[in-house]
Parts: sequence; structure tokens; C-alpha cells
Amino acid sequence: MLNKLTSVNNPKVKAVVRLRQKRAKDSFLTIVEGVKEVAMAIRAGVSFSEVYVCEKNLKDRQLLKKIKNPCFVSEEVLQKMSYGQRNEGILAVCEMRPRSLPENIKTNGLYVILEKIEKPGNLGAMLRTCDAAGVDGVIVCDPKTWIYSPNTVRSSLGTVFTVNVYAADQEEAAAYCRRHGIKVYAASPHGRERYTDCNLKQATAFVLGSEHDGLSDYWMNNADQQILIPMLGKADSLNVAHSMAVLLYETLRQRQFNR
Amino acid sequence: MLNKLTSVNNPKVKAVVRLRQKRAKDSFLTIVEGVKEVAMAIRAGVSFSEVYVCEKNLKDRQLLKKIKNPCFVSEEVLQKMSYGQRNEGILAVCEMRPRSLPENIKTNGLYVILEKIEKPGNLGAMLRTCDAAGVDGVIVCDPKTWIYSPNTVRSSLGTVFTVNVYAADQEEAAAYCRRHGIKVYAASPHGRERYTDCNLKQATAFVLGSEHDGLSDYWMNNADQQILIPMLGKADSLNVAHSMAVLLYETLRQRQFNR
Repeated sequence: MLNKLTSVNNPKVKAVVRLRQKRAKDSFLTIVEGVKEVAMAIRAGVSFSEVYVCEKNLKDRQLLKKIKNPCFVSEEVLQKMSYGQRNEGILAVCEMRPRSLPENIKTNGLYVILEKIEKPGNLGAMLRTCDAAGVDGVIVCDPKTWIYSPNTVRSSLGTVFTVNVYAADQEEAAAYCRRHGIKVYAASPHGRERYTDCNLKQATAFVLGSEHDGLSDYWMNNADQQILIPMLGKADSLNVAHSMAVLLYETLRQRQFNR
Repeated sequence: MLNKLTSVNNPKVKAVVRLRQKRAKDSFLTIVEGVKEVAMAIRAGVSFSEVYVCEKNLKDRQLLKKIKNPCFVSEEVLQKMSYGQRNEGILAVCEMRPRSLPENIKTNGLYVILEKIEKPGNLGAMLRTCDAAGVDGVIVCDPKTWIYSPNTVRSSLGTVFTVNVYAADQEEAAAYCRRHGIKVYAASPHGRERYTDCNLKQATAFVLGSEHDGLSDYWMNNADQQILIPMLGKADSLNVAHSMAVLLYETLRQRQFNR
């Protein structure tokens, strides 16, 4: 029987707690907690530097078989390392570095370009929908939040690992789309063409700005087309994540839900 | 010149602060803060019991002309009454009681039935999209959050006033839809028909469950049809608000964006 880690003052425990601090991003280490999330990361081929397991709380015993060298800990220790009251009995640490744009890409891909995303919770929720829509790549431009922060991992339910997420500056992203013949659409209340009137069967990227500032002039000038999502009510703006979901699923509809 | 309220210990100030507490819902009084939000409430015909104005911070001077008997306050007082660092120079109080379902309705209406909504922030974000989609009514079933809480007002950007929001228990909502020939669709991963294959031009209601529990058995059994939003990725669920946006905008597309 392996020794169980039971002291909340153990340096390993303190090191995990420190990873929740903002400056932890410099280490490129992040936290993956919860059964679904850990399973998703394994599925995506992520290798963990540490996996902490509280056997008492872990309901999915199958998952344990997939973990090499788990470090067994007491309930108290896992609680100390966990976010809020969350404790599904498993928490892993892994190194995640930003990936750059790949040169070999499939034809007629579907991309999302996110500009100035500030809140990890928003990024995570958007990644879940990008996963569902089978997006080929999410290009995060000049991020103000760390792409792989523990908060993003959590709110993405682990899809931050299964979706291809790339970091790039805006010029790089625009040049990439031009080079690969990807048509860039910017959703804008000033757009002339309705999104449903666009042919989205070809290689397509939707660029989305921050909730607060909207799209920058850079993308308003560098997108191939400004498109309109009609609004029939009294308010003058749509939630950016909801807009993204609408655009992606219209694309899928046009492509008859084939990847 | 009217007297200006400058003491943060004034009973009026304390009364507003108390409205942010959970138990304040019994008073049916809520807080509307911000230029856009107050303008939206006025547009919807809401009458305020009090409007507090800090002239120094209020950029939209036109709005002031629409306010009867504003109570002018110091910056410090408005800050004390405001949420977080938010302070656009205007904050109003109004009474909002839940509305019941109306019997006179238009043909081919579009409705959203929300079940067990817990977070006011989620409710608010969904109401914004319901406003944009020109939804005829949002039926909130057995709400676990107060529909008109200050948090909902804020996250809805005031659309909680412009959208027709009704409170009902689930049996009442189901009977209402039957009586008025509104077809009820429940989005479910087990649905057989793709949402894009449904004829959504007729009177339509989409019923959506909570993020955490999904739809209850009641609605799975009482909806006319279970429909599927295909997911092409690795995750097994879509964000409920994103699902709603996709369903509503497919309906608009089929109706050629006519209200």
C-alpha cells in the first residue's frame, strides 16, 4: 500500500494551491479537477505531472486504471487543493503551453478567432460550444487571460484540451487566414449581409470581439466581410458567446452537420 | 435648487442597500442602475418609486428630462447604493410583480419556457437573447431565483423589462401551450429529430432545463417533441443559453426574420 498524503501543509499541496494565483501562468502549469475534465484531458493525450486521488470521493473507479502513479490523498487534502466546494476525488496538474498555428490544415475548415477575451469563464463556455460544433481551430488573439487557467479548464468542462486552441497576434491570424483561403467574417450591427445569406460551406472563420468593447478597428478593416445577426427587440447588442453559437450552428446547418 | 442627499447613513440609502439582500424579494422592489437599463425600463413603461441621480457622473443628460422628481445625491451616496464599482450616475427603484400568462395572444408566437433557473446572471443573459430574437413570451417555471432581482436586471441590460416574462408552475405552462396550440419542443441529447428538420413557423415553445440537472421528467413527458441539437465534438452537453440562442435563431431563419 502506498503512503497517503494527509497533511495540508505538505509542500505539494501548497504548490497546487499556488497554481490558482494569477502569476502562476508563468509556470505553464494548470489544474484539471473533476472526473469528466480529467477523462477529457486523457482523451486528448495530455500528460499529467501529478494526479491526486481521494479514493473515498472518487465515484468513477474506471478512471483510476488510466492514471499512472496516482498520489493518494486524504479528503481534507483534496478539499484544500480544490476550487470551492468542488471535490470529485481527482485533481491533476499538467503543463500546457500555447500552440502556434499549424501549416497543414484540412480544406473547408471552420475557425473561430477570439479577440481580447478577458474572462476565463466566458472563454471556457465558448470552447464547449466550439467543441460541440466541431470547430477545427480557435485562434485566441492577444489574450488578456491565460488560455489554460484552472478557471478556463473548469468552465470548458475539459474541452480546452479537445479543441485545437492556438495563440497568435492579430496580424499573424489575419495573414494565416489569407494564406489558407479562409474567409473571415466579422459579426457587426453595421454588417450589410445577413449571416444566413452567406455561403458558409467554404473555409470560414468568425471573428468575435470582447463583450465590452466589441470588435477592434483592426478586424473591422481586415475581415473579408461584415455580417449581420438581425435583432428584432429593443436592445442593441447580442451576447458574444450566444452570437458565436448562432453563427457556428448556421454553418453546420449549411454543411448538413458533416464535419 | 433641491436639496442634495449627501449622507450615506440616510435611511433612503440604507433601504436601497437592503434591496440587494435575498430576502428583499418579498417587497417586490428591485434596483435598476445604469443609463441603458433605466432608459430600457422607461421605454417599457415601468414606473419608478425613486430615482437617484448623481449629476456629476451622469453622461446622458437627455435621460434626466424623462425622470419625474429625481432625488439628487452625492457621488459617495450613489456609490454606496451601486453594485461594485458601477456608477453611471443613475439608479432607480421600482416594484415588479410576477405576471401571469395572458389569454389574448398572437398567432404563431414564439415562446421560451425556462425550468429551474438558478442563477440571475444566466437568466439575464438569456433574456437579452430572447429580446433580440423577438420572443413573444418567456415563461419562467417554478423559479429558484427572483425574476426581477437587481442581478437579473443588470445582466439582462434592462431587457427583463422589455421582454414579456411570465411566472407559472409547470402544469399551468403545459396546459397553456396545449390550449393555445403552441407546440412544445424539448431539446435533448436523446431527441430523434434534428431541430433544423422541424417546422418552426407555427406557434412554438422551446423548453430548457437547468445547466446542472437538464430537463425534468415532467417536460420530457409533456413536451410534444424531443429534438436534437447535433454535437460533433467530444463533450456530451451544450451550454443551455447557447442552445437557446441556436434554437431561436433557427426559428427566425425559417420565419425569414419576420416578427
